[in-house]
Amino acid sequence: MQAEIITIGDELLIGQVIDSNSAWIAEQLNMTGIRVVQISSISDNRDQITKTLGEALQRADIVLTTGGLGPTKDDITKAALCDFFETRLVFHQESFDNIERIFVARGYPMTDLNRAQAEVPECCTPMANRYGTAPGMLFEKEGRLVISMPGVPFEMKSLMQEQVIPRIRGLSHSSILHRTLLTHGVGESFLAARIEDFEDALPVHIKLAYLPQPGMVRLRLTASGPDFAELKQELEKQADELYRLIPEYIFGENDDTLEEITGKLLREKNFTLATAESCTGGYIAHLLTSVPGSSEYFKGSVVAYANEIKENILGVSALTIQKYGAVSQETVFEMAAGIIRHFNTNCAIAVSGIAGPDGGTPEKPVGTTWISVLSPMGAETRMFTFGEHRGRNIRRAALAGLDMLRKQLMTQNSAS
Amino acid sequence: MQAEIITIGDELLIGQVIDSNSAWIAEQLNMTGIRVVQISSISDNRDQITKTLGEALQRADIVLTTGGLGPTKDDITKAALCDFFETRLVFHQESFDNIERIFVARGYPMTDLNRAQAEVPECCTPMANRYGTAPGMLFEKEGRLVISMPGVPFEMKSLMQEQVIPRIRGLSHSSILHRTLLTHGVGESFLAARIEDFEDALPVHIKLAYLPQPGMVRLRLTASGPDFAELKQELEKQADELYRLIPEYIFGENDDTLEEITGKLLREKNFTLATAESCTGGYIAHLLTSVPGSSEYFKGSVVAYANEIKENILGVSALTIQKYGAVSQETVFEMAAGIIRHFNTNCAIAVSGIAGPDGGTPEKPVGTTWISVLSPMGAETRMFTFGEHRGRNIRRAALAGLDMLRKQLMTQNSAS
Repeated sequence: MQAEIITIGDELLIGQVIDSNSAWIAEQLNMTGIRVVQISSISDNRDQITKTLGEALQRADIVLTTGGLGPTKDDITKAALCDFFETRLVFHQESFDNIERIFVARGYPMTDLNRAQAEVPECCTPMANRYGTAPGMLFEKEGRLVISMPGVPFEMKSLMQEQVIPRIRGLSHSSILHRTLLTHGVGESFLAARIEDFEDALPVHIKLAYLPQPGMVRLRLTASGPDFAELKQELEKQADELYRLIPEYIFGENDDTLEEITGKLLREKNFTLATAESCTGGYIAHLLTSVPGSSEYFKGSVVAYANEIKENILGVSALTIQKYGAVSQETVFEMAAGIIRHFNTNCAIAVSGIAGPDGGTPEKPVGTTWISVLSPMGAETRMFTFGEHRGRNIRRAALAGLDMLRKQLMTQNSAS
Repeated sequence: MQAEIITIGDELLIGQVIDSNSAWIAEQLNMTGIRVVQISSISDNRDQITKTLGEALQRADIVLTTGGLGPTKDDITKAALCDFFETRLVFHQESFDNIERIFVARGYPMTDLNRAQAEVPECCTPMANRYGTAPGMLFEKEGRLVISMPGVPFEMKSLMQEQVIPRIRGLSHSSILHRTLLTHGVGESFLAARIEDFEDALPVHIKLAYLPQPGMVRLRLTASGPDFAELKQELEKQADELYRLIPEYIFGENDDTLEEITGKLLREKNFTLATAESCTGGYIAHLLTSVPGSSEYFKGSVVAYANEIKENILGVSALTIQKYGAVSQETVFEMAAGIIRHFNTNCAIAVSGIAGPDGGTPEKPVGTTWISVLSPMGAETRMFTFGEHRGRNIRRAALAGLDMLRKQLMTQNSAS
């Protein structure tokens, strides 16, 4: 059972709007075992709509379209559907009642343009749109389905959940299951070399994909087959194997973030954290405080961008900075010790580095970053060499610091 | 001159990743006068890639693809391109040197998989990828262009800006010009009411679009026509009119950010800034330090998430917090005064608010935020009532603080 999605609207083709509808629809279809083979974005053009629809129906059993159902002149999806199905528009009383209800509720007067929204192609089954004036439409042709929905995300989502999904669930006799493991601190190619044998040994119905992001590579396992329970068990087994092979890199799954995972560990242990940030400029504090409830374990931060702040507020010795430089093992350790002392926490992350684009030297090129992490479980100060891109260096340094703390908190024996 | 975009990757078809590359590419092409007629997202499937490429080249003069160029087994765009152009992979020394440079800089060992990334189809012109290991590739066939780029957004963007756009600029004979004014501190519908007459009076070949983001509404003017110089002049005139109508809301244009604009003003005046952040959790510091060279005017920040940090580090009186609460005019003013004193700057932004989802009360619901801004030009402490969404509240508070400082720095007379 295969599907295609067609999103219709000029705004998509001039880059004014990012098409987020498709990803959401694809995810929903996937969960019902329907595979999406292509997504196309096209303009509000009658010929292009009929042509693209025809091509999609040659490849897929179900075609879902969004957009072009509004009351204004540029919305011509209904006219194109009439062309395609060789039919004409007819008045649909229930859709009219729905439009009237919405206008009464809003206290707006109804125009002829709105009345025209109650007209639908004669051969379709209209689907009531609870949140808007354009009804959804379902067409059947030679055993295949065409479903037309409005492009407004919440109208489309309610139609999908209440009408489309119940209708197409059960059409597919196979299931598709995903499980995504999140890794940090290792490059895509190095990871691939480490788990090459695992990948080669995967059965044909289970696929592995590498999805890199700055500072992170996601490993997605996808299984497809007729038996949901069996697939789930198989994915479980393969994921366990990955945990066994690369335990030092996996920090979470699916939508987990390092700041959440690290925060959870701090909360469990009843620890408190503060950060002393130079090149990350408050970004670690920002990540930590993006998590609701982080005030339970996060006390705050000193962003010590100027050296005098490192000295006056964090208590780093002027001699240390003079002798070793602001980006050094010695300075970053004193920053960590200083923030623990002044903020009265038992954990600290301190970072000092050269984010770029300026400030690099032959000995300490842009990307050079020292990170010190202290906790009751241990102390570690490490150097990293990131790249040349300022924004990415900041993100990678922040994630590296959080991951160092996470690993320390996961060790079994307290070093204090 | 028409273009199509093909984004390649299974992650797009299962809804794991929203395709944001296409909108960005479409916008760039648009600005060079090239119209995008279709965007297609397809899977990492060799046959589908060649088939889709063939169909796209029948409709468009230029086809741009992203994705499927990574080092791992699931990346097969290069193999598909070899099929399509009936050619084979050959070793490309410059691409290899680039890969080696990146690995040396990162201190990672290079694997065979990375070496293979230096192989490109024989008939293409490789384009150096400054930020990643997969080179871009340009193919010409019967007067049409195929351009293949990696899917990692910042690698793709740098390739587009530095190599693709210069290459295709001038291919189109009509011009599309955009000019985007950035506003802060006003809602979309209020803005629309304020400039309704302006909008109604626009000539047909100039369009106005409202592009809202958290804490910001962008107003984009788009003009199209054959004469570039004439369009530019017309846009100039319309933009001037907007500046005249809503001067208090416009803070910049196009890719400007409030943190850059405010930073520029600080540098011009030789002022220094520090921030004292509670609910924004370091996000203002992060925005400011995202700008290269910000160390010239930004000294640092205290993220005072816990009340004891407000007292012990910033010197807010315990009595003030007890009497008025941490989210109050009095507390936030003392935070601003404290950070100026301790960090020895002449400007400060201090924020204390309830970001949510918890912590609200009937008197101070979630979204209540106090901001205090001090500078040699003046002092202002204001309350804002944002919404219920934690992430958006943090962003809106940060932008509001930066904009308060920007406005202070733009006043003519020093209050000190």
